Amino acid sequence: MDYAKESLKKHAEWKGKIEVVSRAKVRNADDLSIAYTPGVAQPCLEIEKDPSKSYTLTRRWNMAAVITDGSAVLGLGNIGPEAAMPVMEGKCVLFKEFADVDAFPLCVDSNDVDTIVETIKNISKSFGGINLEDISAPRCFEIERRLKEVCDIPIFHDDQHGTAIITLAGLTNALKVVGKKKEEVKVVTSGAGAAAISIVKLLLSAGFKDIIMTDRRGAIYEGRDHLNWIKEEMAQVTNLEKKQGSLADVIQGADVFIGVSAPGLVSQDMVRSMNKDAIIFACANPTPEIFPDDAKAAGAAVISTGRSDFPNQINNVLAFPGVFRGAFDVRASDINEEMKMAAAQALANLIPDDELSAEYIIPKAFDPKVGPAVAKAVAQAARNSGVARI
Amino acid sequence: MDYAKESLKKHAEWKGKIEVVSRAKVRNADDLSIAYTPGVAQPCLEIEKDPSKSYTLTRRWNMAAVITDGSAVLGLGNIGPEAAMPVMEGKCVLFKEFADVDAFPLCVDSNDVDTIVETIKNISKSFGGINLEDISAPRCFEIERRLKEVCDIPIFHDDQHGTAIITLAGLTNALKVVGKKKEEVKVVTSGAGAAAISIVKLLLSAGFKDIIMTDRRGAIYEGRDHLNWIKEEMAQVTNLEKKQGSLADVIQGADVFIGVSAPGLVSQDMVRSMNKDAIIFACANPTPEIFPDDAKAAGAAVISTGRSDFPNQINNVLAFPGVFRGAFDVRASDINEEMKMAAAQALANLIPDDELSAEYIIPKAFDPKVGPAVAKAVAQAARNSGVARI
Repeated sequence: MDYAKESLKKHAEWKGKIEVVSRAKVRNADDLSIAYTPGVAQPCLEIEKDPSKSYTLTRRWNMAAVITDGSAVLGLGNIGPEAAMPVMEGKCVLFKEFADVDAFPLCVDSNDVDTIVETIKNISKSFGGINLEDISAPRCFEIERRLKEVCDIPIFHDDQHGTAIITLAGLTNALKVVGKKKEEVKVVTSGAGAAAISIVKLLLSAGFKDIIMTDRRGAIYEGRDHLNWIKEEMAQVTNLEKKQGSLADVIQGADVFIGVSAPGLVSQDMVRSMNKDAIIFACANPTPEIFPDDAKAAGAAVISTGRSDFPNQINNVLAFPGVFRGAFDVRASDINEEMKMAAAQALANLIPDDELSAEYIIPKAFDPKVGPAVAKAVAQAARNSGVARI
Repeated sequence: MDYAKESLKKHAEWKGKIEVVSRAKVRNADDLSIAYTPGVAQPCLEIEKDPSKSYTLTRRWNMAAVITDGSAVLGLGNIGPEAAMPVMEGKCVLFKEFADVDAFPLCVDSNDVDTIVETIKNISKSFGGINLEDISAPRCFEIERRLKEVCDIPIFHDDQHGTAIITLAGLTNALKVVGKKKEEVKVVTSGAGAAAISIVKLLLSAGFKDIIMTDRRGAIYEGRDHLNWIKEEMAQVTNLEKKQGSLADVIQGADVFIGVSAPGLVSQDMVRSMNKDAIIFACANPTPEIFPDDAKAAGAAVISTGRSDFPNQINNVLAFPGVFRGAFDVRASDINEEMKMAAAQALANLIPDDELSAEYIIPKAFDPKVGPAVAKAVAQAARNSGVARI
C-alpha cells in the first residue's frame, strides 16, 4: 500500500482525527442548570476548597496533553506548529485506542526553551499529565527537566522514554535468548539524540555497566571536543575507560549494538568484529543502520528494528499508552525511572520463556495484553516509589 | 430541584463532562501506518507547504479553545485554574450540544495580562478560534484586544459579546413592542464590567445614540474621578451631555434600563421616574436589579432578566454556539461588530411579528432554530465584512 497517498486521502476524509464530545447531555433547562449555571458553582467551590478534587469532578484524571514545538517531527525536521498537528492528533488517537486515555494535541508556536516551558507550565493544571513529542535534542532534555521541576503532574517525553522502555524490554529478552547477563555485556550505541540518551540512561538504571555512546565524530568520552551539555553529562557515566575512535573501532568486541542514528551506518564487517551471539538493535527509520538479513549473515544472533515488516519491531505504541494509563490510575505525580523499568519488565515478561526466540523478543503492537500489563506494572511501581497519590 | 446538590452528584458520576475521542480507528498495522507513521508524514508535508491546509487535514476547522484564568468565574470571584474547570467543561459541552463545535477547556495559571496573552498566542495555531471566559474586567478587554492583534483566528470573550448580542436582540424586539426607535430612546445602564461595556459598544454600533453608563459612583462622564482606562474610553462615546448624579438621578426620563450589576439596585420609584412604556433588562444573576413583578407594577412595559423562571431570559447559550458555528463555517479570521450585529438581528427575527409580545421578545434557549439561524447570519456577515476565508 502507498501509505503516503492513502494517508493524505484518509486525512481529507477524517477532517481531523480527534473530536471533543460531551459526556453530559443537555436537553432541557434542568440539564443546563446542572451541567452549567447555576449548579456548576458547587463543584467549582468544592475544587476551590480542595484542588485534588479536580481529579474527581473534572476530566483531569484521564486527560493528557500531547505537546510539540514542531521542531523534530518524524524525520521531517522543524516543520512548525500547524504542520506538526497531524502527528499530534495521531498520537492522541493511539492514546485513546490503546489505553482509553483522553489526549489533546497542542502545538507551541515557538522554539525557545523558556517560552515552551512557561507556556506548558501555565496550562498544566488543566491536565493530568503531559506527553512531550517531537522536540529536538538537546532542547528536549532541558524542557523536560524544567517542567518536571515546576509541575506536579507526570511529564513524559515519549521520543526519549517510550523508545528506551521498549529497547530495555527487547534487550532483556535478547540477553535471555543468547544467555548473557546485563552486568557483563558491552553495549555500543550510535546516535546522541533524544532516544539514544534516554536508552543509555535507562540501561544504566537497569544495571547495565559497560556502555559506549558514539555520535558522528565517534566515541563519546569525557573531555572530548564538540560535546554539548547533555553529551558531557553522558560522558561522565559511560565509556569509563575513555576509549576513543570511530564506531567501527569501538564496536569491536561489543555484545550489543543499539542504533538510533542513520541508515546503513553499520557494515557486515562491523558485525563480524563484535562478540559471538551479537545483538543488533538497528532502529533508524525507515532504513535501519543495517538490514536484518545482512546482520544475520554476518553472525548476529538477535536483531530488532523499527519496522513492522521485520521481526521484533520497536514500536512506541507498546509503551506510552500503558505508561500513562498506569500513571493516571494511581494519580501519579511523576513518571520516574522505576516506572519506566517496570514497564520494560512487564513488556519483556509478556513473552513466556517457551515462546521466546531470536525472532520474538518484543510483543506485537496489537497484542491486547500489552496495554493492561504495562499499566498494571507502572501503577505498582508508582506506588512502590512513592509517587502514587491514590 | 436543588441544583447545587444535584450538580455535585452528577459531576462525580460524569468524571468529566467532556471526552476526547478518536475519529480514526486503529485496528491493525495498516491503520497505524495511515493514521500515524509513516503515512502521516504526507499530510504534515502538505500543511508545511500550505498552512491553510491545517483547516482541511486536521480538526482545526472545528476546534475552539475555551480559556480562562479563573479570575471571574460565575459570581465566585478569583477561584483559580483547577476550580474554574467545571465551568469551562460545561461551556465546551454547550458548544458541542448546541452547534457541534469541538471545544477544549484550558485554565491558565496566572492572572498577569502579559502572561495570559503570551500563553494563548503560543498555542493559538492549534485552534480555529478562542473563546475567552470568566476573565475579570478591565483585564479582559486588554487581553482580548491584544490577542486580536497577534492572532489570525477569531478571539471572542463571551461574557462581553454573548451577553451584548442577546441584549441587542431583545432590545430590538422590545422597541418594536412599545413602538419606539433606537435612534430616539434614552438608555441608562448600570455596571461597568465586561458585559456592560460590550453591550454599550454594540448598541452604539447598532445605531443607539443616547446612552448613559453608571457604576457604583453614579453616572460615568468624561473627566469624572475614579475611571479606569476602559471607563474613560466609554466616557468619550456615551453621556455626551456629561450628566452627573446617581443612577436614580439619571434614570429619570429614560426609556430603557439595562442592568448587569447588583441585586436590588433599581427601586419601583426609579421605574416610575422613567418614560412611559419603560423597558427593563435586569440581568444581575441570580437576583436581578428589580424583580419583574415589581417592575411591572411600577409601570414597566417589557422586562427581561437572566433567569429561566421569568419570561425573556438573556441566556448566553442563544449566541456563542451559533456565532462560532458561523465563523467556523467560513473560516473567519475574526468575529467583528458586523457579525455580532447580524447574530443579534437573526435572534430578533426568529420571533415573527404576530408572536411578538412583552412576554416574548427573546427566543427560547432550546428552540432548535436558534443555532442555525445565528450561524447563517454570522457567516453571511463575515463574508460581507471581508473576514471570511472560504
